[in-house]
Amino acid sequence: MSQSPAHASDDEALASSSGPPCIALDAFGSDQCPGPEVDGAVAAAKAGIHVILVGDRTKIEAELSRHAGWDGLPVAIHHASEVITMEDSPAKAVRSRPDASMPVCFDLVRKGQAHAALSAGNSGAMLACGLFKYKRIKGVDRPALVTSLPTREGWVSLLDVGANVDCRPVNLVQFAVMGAVYAGFKHGVATPRVGLLSNGSEQTKGTELTRTVHGLLAEATLEGLEYVGYVEGTDTMSGEVDVVVTDGFTGNVALKIAEATGRLIGHWLKGALRGGPRRALGGLILRPAFAELRQRLDPEAYGAAPLLGVDGLAFICHGGSSGFAIATALEFATRSVDEALTPRITKALAVHADLLAAAKRAEPARS
Amino acid sequence: MSQSPAHASDDEALASSSGPPCIALDAFGSDQCPGPEVDGAVAAAKAGIHVILVGDRTKIEAELSRHAGWDGLPVAIHHASEVITMEDSPAKAVRSRPDASMPVCFDLVRKGQAHAALSAGNSGAMLACGLFKYKRIKGVDRPALVTSLPTREGWVSLLDVGANVDCRPVNLVQFAVMGAVYAGFKHGVATPRVGLLSNGSEQTKGTELTRTVHGLLAEATLEGLEYVGYVEGTDTMSGEVDVVVTDGFTGNVALKIAEATGRLIGHWLKGALRGGPRRALGGLILRPAFAELRQRLDPEAYGAAPLLGVDGLAFICHGGSSGFAIATALEFATRSVDEALTPRITKALAVHADLLAAAKRAEPARS
Repeated sequence: MSQSPAHASDDEALASSSGPPCIALDAFGSDQCPGPEVDGAVAAAKAGIHVILVGDRTKIEAELSRHAGWDGLPVAIHHASEVITMEDSPAKAVRSRPDASMPVCFDLVRKGQAHAALSAGNSGAMLACGLFKYKRIKGVDRPALVTSLPTREGWVSLLDVGANVDCRPVNLVQFAVMGAVYAGFKHGVATPRVGLLSNGSEQTKGTELTRTVHGLLAEATLEGLEYVGYVEGTDTMSGEVDVVVTDGFTGNVALKIAEATGRLIGHWLKGALRGGPRRALGGLILRPAFAELRQRLDPEAYGAAPLLGVDGLAFICHGGSSGFAIATALEFATRSVDEALTPRITKALAVHADLLAAAKRAEPARS
Repeated sequence: MSQSPAHASDDEALASSSGPPCIALDAFGSDQCPGPEVDGAVAAAKAGIHVILVGDRTKIEAELSRHAGWDGLPVAIHHASEVITMEDSPAKAVRSRPDASMPVCFDLVRKGQAHAALSAGNSGAMLACGLFKYKRIKGVDRPALVTSLPTREGWVSLLDVGANVDCRPVNLVQFAVMGAVYAGFKHGVATPRVGLLSNGSEQTKGTELTRTVHGLLAEATLEGLEYVGYVEGTDTMSGEVDVVVTDGFTGNVALKIAEATGRLIGHWLKGALRGGPRRALGGLILRPAFAELRQRLDPEAYGAAPLLGVDGLAFICHGGSSGFAIATALEFATRSVDEALTPRITKALAVHADLLAAAKRAEPARS
């Protein structure tokens, strides 16, 4: 397998089950690939993180050559001849192109040569890779993509944001359990407050799906999380809940509407500072304040979305990720290996086995 | 019916089918009722709009007495002894309390004593009143609530934002036709571009429901609107579409997430100006710019959401509406009477009768 030329580190030597965590990074995922991936890998490696860049060796080396002294860093290359694009049909692409950079990342994890897979590419294909290569954790029907949105003082973890558009009650119950583990892990919340996204806070609101899930969660004995009932869109970022659970269609819309609103306000704010010299002066004085605000609004700063519910670590970055975003994601992936994110989720699901069994028996929601 | 004391105008005299449009305003809808309703009615009446305040006569008169000279304005009182609250179960409340201020507004329209009903109260009860009292327009399965969100340079009309959580294909097709009429009416768009909200722009994305609707709209011959396909949350406020169609669950979440994001950014912006004297100075200089921004972000400024698809005019305001918001809504309701919003919708639905019949035959989406 090792096709490394003399100056590239050997990925087999880099990663071993006893050594430090090593992340398999799909170098051909992002919109501007492989530039951001290589920049991110180098930046992370300088901080001691071990990375295997997966993809076309020649192109990766060309990018790496722009970074003086990279060959002294814990960065390796693993050649993969093909790529999966944003336009590809996920499951078909993963099946027909086993040598593409994305599925090869998962293979490296399966073989014990890496400990987590990371890509800024096609999220549907990432889901397919997770299902085909890692398999599901016992008790999980469908994995979920989770991301964290800012609140006034902290964060709220939202799931599913796109892995499953048509959900059954058992899926949302599993999302609640997994989301709570994630909020505890990512943001250090002791007993996460979990809400169910709805169109109103009254119990009569919601769809057949949400009402079924509400009944299950409200009556269950929960460990390590508190179910607080329905939350409206308005309350999602108020700081009153740590986790918001919804189906992947609604969650994806919610996430993207929040992004769109942030962008729109940023655009208006810029425009408001262009109304003459007085405003330009104000803008100049407030430049540091606006820079802070921009950073808070930047979806990239929110890092990688892990795929929860598969038996292995996989992280999906924004297609428009910068090198900085990739480096941040690599750092988070490393922490997830070190602090055993997957085993924690497996354990929480086992603890709630009775609830999950009841949820599986619950009538699927008709719409 | 007239129980007016000497100083209150007579609502029968105020409204007649040949006279100017007259709006029946539920005085007991908003969170702070009846203050904002009375303030709004007086402000609108000063601009020549005819209003009947519906609700407890004594309480309305007490509020009106704070406005010197109100009895010279085109404002009348129609007594209604009961109220419907936000906590009430909509259909049950409307059936069991026929004398509540909200349903009485619809009765006044039915009897020809007013031309539109307006309330800042329980939106589910407004929907129930619309269905029970006005009935549906021919060809309409379920009415929809529509609201407009700001874009970079203009507006986008979003529907349904809460009337129907569980939708079938025919509902979304009707929303597309009605939404286009509304965007033309409200924002003067000649041939509105209509998009279908989804979790991705590719045709393979979406739910069974959206894929069915996409197939119907993409193949139909449409008049007065252009169907542009799937739009993601990110594109909703980009200005590339004039109408975004979705089910009432997703639409409600989308609307409230946009509001929540706006509020969160406003909160951060305030905080950013509190970091010492330099920032305070910048904030002072930019006060007019921030005031402009606040106005753009203010959901109240976006006015009343009409209930489309019932055979009569009904407008729902935000529960937290101020007098200014109520006055703006009264003005818009009056224009809707003058410029025949309901007949325009009836006509557009008739023009698309074949499409609606095909949509009715389409398989309901399973989830």
